[in-house]
Amino acid sequence: MRSLAIAAILVSGSAMAQNTEPVSPVPAHKAVNPAAVELGKKLFFDPRLSKSGFISCNSCHNLSLGGTDNLKTSIGHNWQQGPINSPTVLNSRLNLAQFWDGRAKDLKEQAGGPIANPGEMAFTHELAIETLKSIPGYVEEFKQVFKTDRLSIDEVTTAIAAFEETLVTPNSRFDQWLDGDKKALTKDELAGYQLFKDSGCVACHNGPNLGGNSFQKMGVVQAYKTASTAEGRKGVTGKDADRLNFKVPTLRNVELTYPYFHDGEAATLASAVDLMGRLQLGREFSKDENAKIVAFLKTLTGQQPQIALPIMPPSTDKTPKPRPFN
Amino acid sequence: MRSLAIAAILVSGSAMAQNTEPVSPVPAHKAVNPAAVELGKKLFFDPRLSKSGFISCNSCHNLSLGGTDNLKTSIGHNWQQGPINSPTVLNSRLNLAQFWDGRAKDLKEQAGGPIANPGEMAFTHELAIETLKSIPGYVEEFKQVFKTDRLSIDEVTTAIAAFEETLVTPNSRFDQWLDGDKKALTKDELAGYQLFKDSGCVACHNGPNLGGNSFQKMGVVQAYKTASTAEGRKGVTGKDADRLNFKVPTLRNVELTYPYFHDGEAATLASAVDLMGRLQLGREFSKDENAKIVAFLKTLTGQQPQIALPIMPPSTDKTPKPRPFN
Repeated sequence: MRSLAIAAILVSGSAMAQNTEPVSPVPAHKAVNPAAVELGKKLFFDPRLSKSGFISCNSCHNLSLGGTDNLKTSIGHNWQQGPINSPTVLNSRLNLAQFWDGRAKDLKEQAGGPIANPGEMAFTHELAIETLKSIPGYVEEFKQVFKTDRLSIDEVTTAIAAFEETLVTPNSRFDQWLDGDKKALTKDELAGYQLFKDSGCVACHNGPNLGGNSFQKMGVVQAYKTASTAEGRKGVTGKDADRLNFKVPTLRNVELTYPYFHDGEAATLASAVDLMGRLQLGREFSKDENAKIVAFLKTLTGQQPQIALPIMPPSTDKTPKPRPFN
Repeated sequence: MRSLAIAAILVSGSAMAQNTEPVSPVPAHKAVNPAAVELGKKLFFDPRLSKSGFISCNSCHNLSLGGTDNLKTSIGHNWQQGPINSPTVLNSRLNLAQFWDGRAKDLKEQAGGPIANPGEMAFTHELAIETLKSIPGYVEEFKQVFKTDRLSIDEVTTAIAAFEETLVTPNSRFDQWLDGDKKALTKDELAGYQLFKDSGCVACHNGPNLGGNSFQKMGVVQAYKTASTAEGRKGVTGKDADRLNFKVPTLRNVELTYPYFHDGEAATLASAVDLMGRLQLGREFSKDENAKIVAFLKTLTGQQPQIALPIMPPSTDKTPKPRPFN
């Protein structure tokens, strides 16, 4: 009995070593319903889900740019300045909730938000559905995917979420290291990871997404000063204590998802690491420490989703006209 | 001698039949320099070539939407309303010149325009180059493609044009018919083509691109009334006679490139055909004739380019920041 147990430990030695890390690799994702994914991809890229006919999900969650727009805060209908930094859609399936304040419980619930937000796509769900119903290519595809004639916002957000579920970025150098390739990281990168753990970053940035699994106060040790009016969880719970509580952002692909923080005020990884140290940990990282942590963070860039640009089914004479300027 | 000549006619009968048509199939295009095409594709999709960091070539020449934005006139920096309808980039290599007024002699010359146009991407060539030079992934790729350390607007527009050269749409049903598949078109579609030829549409819409190879007056028989201030060739030649002379738009993929005309005022193919009949030919098509011509026009939709969405090399701390709101 005892020798068997020892044998089991020996056999699973590598797996055991991994389990001691507070971070785990991005799990691969296999689409359950590829037809729904393909439809969702079209919808994700289709600007006809906006009032202007110009803004799609991909405008602010650009899959060429790490699933973000790389702007401090986003541009919405009529060039409105958004109130918050666009979070990456990559690996967002791993988050405990969606939006910075977690007001959507999952990707499906999130997907309906921007379409009808007057400051973003500025459409209505009713007009989005009327638009899609006027396009035979879409009507046919919805029917094939959902085996029903119903075409409502429910099917639309289900399909978009199915596509977004596939947007994972496996096989980063850090995940290769986690999986046992000890040469995948340099000495400095490993030193950065050690600092990341020892100094407490990992208290919030852990799990497969290095974040996304808790809400935390922005400004624990020092208060965070910002011109942003975003209130965080307070907007959801109504509690004053939840002011500036935000969902911890993922650090996956963080090299691609600049600028940083909910207000986009940290332009570089170096400044983000510096500020996080001061605000959250009461710690001033030396220039060398900062550089090592940044080097580690850059190992979190995974394989980006390979997307074949969808070709949209054309509108018809019955399709409501886009209204960009009124 | 005589029997040889007859044999030659018999053998090439099918080819001879094609040669009598005023329209020819879209020629396939083989990229001379695939690495330049790949680089050009990145640049085509990269919003960092705009002041805002939000607008790319693909914003108005959306390859999911027939190479257009499907808006009457385009949206530029700060949501400015553009003066003209965005022409399709598809098959644009076949045009005698670029832009509606032909002010650019080729795709390379065209590509530099929107980047620096204050109403479009609102950047400068200098800032675009400074941006690209700050991104190691781009610097390396330019070096590999052009075998030089030089990175100027010349290399940028050369690469974009190389990509755009590949954006052809072969194998439409009409081209299959031209190539000898007599079952490729229905009776109504063929009747529409016959009407298209007999009534004179083909006088301007001919050649492989069914247009794009001449400038013509908008409003030959009747004057065209429009609120648009676009002057056409007059802006290039300075001659009053060239007012409202425009490059004849291609009819390839015209089902996808709505709305129509330089001012985008024709929302549907039916209205575009109707107006063209009245304005250019002094002819009123019956409802049945109109429907047949429209049916023919819809056979001109070719295979859309299959594009793998490019992944952009990330900016660095030295990259000039986008300025969407100032």
